[in-house]
Amino acid sequence: MAKKKPLILVSNDDGITSRGIRTLVELMTQLGEVVVVAPNSPQSGMGHAITVANTLRLDPSIAFEGGPVGGITAYECSGTPADCVKLAKHHVLKDRKPDLVVSGINHGSNSSVSVLYSGTMSAAIEAAIEGLPAIGFSLCDYSHEADFSHTHEWVKKIANQVLQHGLPAGVALNVNIPAKAAGEIEGIKICRQANASWQEKFDTRKDPYGRRYFWMTGRFVNHDQGEDTDEWALAHHHVSIVPCVFDLTAHHALAALNAWGL
Amino acid sequence: MAKKKPLILVSNDDGITSRGIRTLVELMTQLGEVVVVAPNSPQSGMGHAITVANTLRLDPSIAFEGGPVGGITAYECSGTPADCVKLAKHHVLKDRKPDLVVSGINHGSNSSVSVLYSGTMSAAIEAAIEGLPAIGFSLCDYSHEADFSHTHEWVKKIANQVLQHGLPAGVALNVNIPAKAAGEIEGIKICRQANASWQEKFDTRKDPYGRRYFWMTGRFVNHDQGEDTDEWALAHHHVSIVPCVFDLTAHHALAALNAWGL
Repeated sequence: MAKKKPLILVSNDDGITSRGIRTLVELMTQLGEVVVVAPNSPQSGMGHAITVANTLRLDPSIAFEGGPVGGITAYECSGTPADCVKLAKHHVLKDRKPDLVVSGINHGSNSSVSVLYSGTMSAAIEAAIEGLPAIGFSLCDYSHEADFSHTHEWVKKIANQVLQHGLPAGVALNVNIPAKAAGEIEGIKICRQANASWQEKFDTRKDPYGRRYFWMTGRFVNHDQGEDTDEWALAHHHVSIVPCVFDLTAHHALAALNAWGL
Repeated sequence: MAKKKPLILVSNDDGITSRGIRTLVELMTQLGEVVVVAPNSPQSGMGHAITVANTLRLDPSIAFEGGPVGGITAYECSGTPADCVKLAKHHVLKDRKPDLVVSGINHGSNSSVSVLYSGTMSAAIEAAIEGLPAIGFSLCDYSHEADFSHTHEWVKKIANQVLQHGLPAGVALNVNIPAKAAGEIEGIKICRQANASWQEKFDTRKDPYGRRYFWMTGRFVNHDQGEDTDEWALAHHHVSIVPCVFDLTAHHALAALNAWGL
């Protein structure tokens, strides 16, 4: 008897018509049966937002019709990446449990602290909360026209490993891949999240009616000299993998707080 | 020479006109100089979303004029709670570093896994990323008309302790307070985040034009039998405090992943 094909749920945050999810869907069809539930519009920077005070739409999508791969069930959703995973799990797939949830491939890095702002990673972390093995993939290239060709082997290798081994309970992988222009990739490194932050600057402008508005801009500042971080790996031509938890407890701080005698 | 009053930044996710932030602002004026930067509309469930693909508005607010307390600088912002903290830090306060950042008091619990979806806690965690001591306060009562009177002593006690001791680097406190109707509060417990999840159900409806839409509903399921969790503390008439990190690295999973030989 032939082994059953694994069921793979695909989502993202750049929207269902982005080049990154097209790439990921094509790669995942080589590994299993693919179901897509992805946002119907770009949702970058949505973090772990969910739609609680508004309604949600979920409609069959033609985004992958006429493409190079067939047999894909696809839905587009008005909500956030986390909404997409919730709708996929509890409405679209119902009793069918995915063997793997993948999100991306994001146009732009989600390394270090950007994991918190990332809709791509929120889809993966939401899946981890639901007890599903999950990976968020990101390419360190923000361009709409980003070249994903060099990501194929790495994405398939990592997805295959997770299908084979599973993941520890409550863990999702944050995978970042250097841009094509950064040169040959030397390998994969398992990393911790670099301690970095965004130093924001707000570009102040006037609208056509004379009222002030802002654009958030900023630069990424890495405060972390460690050679075991995702930033270090990426800067040294490696794919970075950070295993991520959704338990935010600062276990190391419990004793100090208890000492306050509250 | 009189000791300088601490500078306290206040934000929230229910919006600048909510009863919860009004309460928090009034309490904080008893402890220091208050600056408010809060959303101009409700932002519940926004998680750690930030506004990257759109413009931001930030305008002086009259929300606290004519109230029982004076001397409050207040701004209302079109963005998310995380945006508010970024704008406060890098535009409103600039070279003035807050001694404390508080967010809330949220109308509704942000215990356990709800911390991830919480705009209230994202404001606090954003402040922690910026290196500032921060606390998110939530009341386990979703009502717009929630009674906050019993929270005063606990909120002031915890804020005072953080002003006195500071917090370990990169740690923000997630404080949840039982609803007034739950009875007398017996004390405070320092906790870990309970391992729980939301079991979603999607209420399917038809709009007036015959097209389908959904409301996300669900029930909270606590999988965690521990007596050291926030859920346990709240169920046993205690204020829960979970210290939270923004480093999501699953350090316990690094060895297992390295063993894959990627």
